[in-house]
Amino acid sequence: MRLATILHNNSHAIASIDAEGQTARKLVSAGGEAIADMTTLIERFDTVKNALQFESQAIPFAQLQFAAPIQRPRRNIMCVGKNYFEHAHEFTRSGFDSSASKPADAVPSAPIVFTKMPETVVASGEPMGFPGACEQLDYEAELGVIIGKGGLGIDKASAMSHVFGYVIINDLTARDLQAKHKQWFLGKSFETSCPMGPWIGTADELDGANLNLKCWVNGELRQNANSKDLIFDIPTLIETLSAGFALLPGDIIATGTPVGVGIGFNPPRFLQSGDKVEIEIDGLGRLSNSVR
Amino acid sequence: MRLATILHNNSHAIASIDAEGQTARKLVSAGGEAIADMTTLIERFDTVKNALQFESQAIPFAQLQFAAPIQRPRRNIMCVGKNYFEHAHEFTRSGFDSSASKPADAVPSAPIVFTKMPETVVASGEPMGFPGACEQLDYEAELGVIIGKGGLGIDKASAMSHVFGYVIINDLTARDLQAKHKQWFLGKSFETSCPMGPWIGTADELDGANLNLKCWVNGELRQNANSKDLIFDIPTLIETLSAGFALLPGDIIATGTPVGVGIGFNPPRFLQSGDKVEIEIDGLGRLSNSVR
Repeated sequence: MRLATILHNNSHAIASIDAEGQTARKLVSAGGEAIADMTTLIERFDTVKNALQFESQAIPFAQLQFAAPIQRPRRNIMCVGKNYFEHAHEFTRSGFDSSASKPADAVPSAPIVFTKMPETVVASGEPMGFPGACEQLDYEAELGVIIGKGGLGIDKASAMSHVFGYVIINDLTARDLQAKHKQWFLGKSFETSCPMGPWIGTADELDGANLNLKCWVNGELRQNANSKDLIFDIPTLIETLSAGFALLPGDIIATGTPVGVGIGFNPPRFLQSGDKVEIEIDGLGRLSNSVR
Repeated sequence: MRLATILHNNSHAIASIDAEGQTARKLVSAGGEAIADMTTLIERFDTVKNALQFESQAIPFAQLQFAAPIQRPRRNIMCVGKNYFEHAHEFTRSGFDSSASKPADAVPSAPIVFTKMPETVVASGEPMGFPGACEQLDYEAELGVIIGKGGLGIDKASAMSHVFGYVIINDLTARDLQAKHKQWFLGKSFETSCPMGPWIGTADELDGANLNLKCWVNGELRQNANSKDLIFDIPTLIETLSAGFALLPGDIIATGTPVGVGIGFNPPRFLQSGDKVEIEIDGLGRLSNSVR
């Protein structure tokens, strides 16, 4: 199933996306349960999934707007840094990596995790950019994992049963602030810094360990990778995160970006006003945002 | 005013604490507004503050329990690292500091910020500890700043008008995880890792730039400092954080810990099961938690 939050006739609705990725059908009922938003649907999914009813009328994408599938996550988005080998090397080489000063330390021995505030989320199509001046804005195309069933102390073996689905995330970064403040929160968490969408693909239809990811800037292919190359795979991330606190339904884990970000170039190719970043992942559509 | 969330007769209530810090009086009404919790009160405070009515009956502390003043923050707690000179040096010297490998880099040139999940908050009196095994648990006594009026791009000059009040925070840390994962989130954000309370002291009655802070472990004084010695003062922190995103009413900023944490000793003195950590800050009472 592909689930989106859409804006149609001036109101938000949860919708199912057809297999061709051209139309949406609004959720009508969920077996008598009130489903106010995507987080509630995720939380109640095991109970209501067989009772979900969608409108028979399919709305073409041209007649709707996508909101972020989870418009306001219940708490910060968890993001993994340096989780592809080649990106780990390009980042450390760039001089912006406060976590490693020499090439030998480039590849992490344990997951590196930071967060973004819930209000940083924007939808596909919305403008993005640091609120003030940012000379060093950079894109990071990532596979996002949405937690379905929560839990504390989840082991790798059962981790995948806790995954509700997947979504595209652009882990937009202010490189100057990321370097300057050592811990990455301030360079990663600013308004519009978490473009997400257009829809969630549920885990039953996708293999999170084998999804192609592509990212273009103004039509030029910059990133082209597969999630099988994650240094720390999804079960490892879930085990690591849930060791200290219970994951909750609707939690979002951005799994890290592959090689090809702006600071990987020499000289760096930072995003400029008007630049368009487009990201595609198998089965998850296309996330498209331009710099304001 | 001193505001707490108390548990009395099996239900939670917002309460006012008397000047002697011995009794609490429950909130009865707020000019007709429904005030469900402390975050709502903070959000509506400018409007309702002159209409707040408290019960005439004062409840002695012995007859109540303190909940955390903000039981479930609306989003992650923002925490500042290495914000006192001597602590910056002790931390870098300890070898656990992934943000600086040599003494010359010990003192940060810009605020270092990381976050803790909202569910890490516990009240004074509640047990604390990493859910699994943690050999290197450490305390960090800190002054917490509670945001009243939100805003994006707040400058230093007006920053203090955005402060609702102050609270004691213990930024409990798993040193092994803090070092191992480079970014500090995983070593800082685990269940019970944010003891907070017992009450909030409002900004009109306290000078955040001149508060004494003391921390004892099993009765031994370990930390003894004053908030005037913060490297980055409260206005600087508010300006820095709000540059990228709007601060919101009820947001919590833990301003950093002074010298005297467990890893400052040689050999380190990590917390053991049963150890009791007590923190006092002028006007804010005493936060007391034991390791489970």
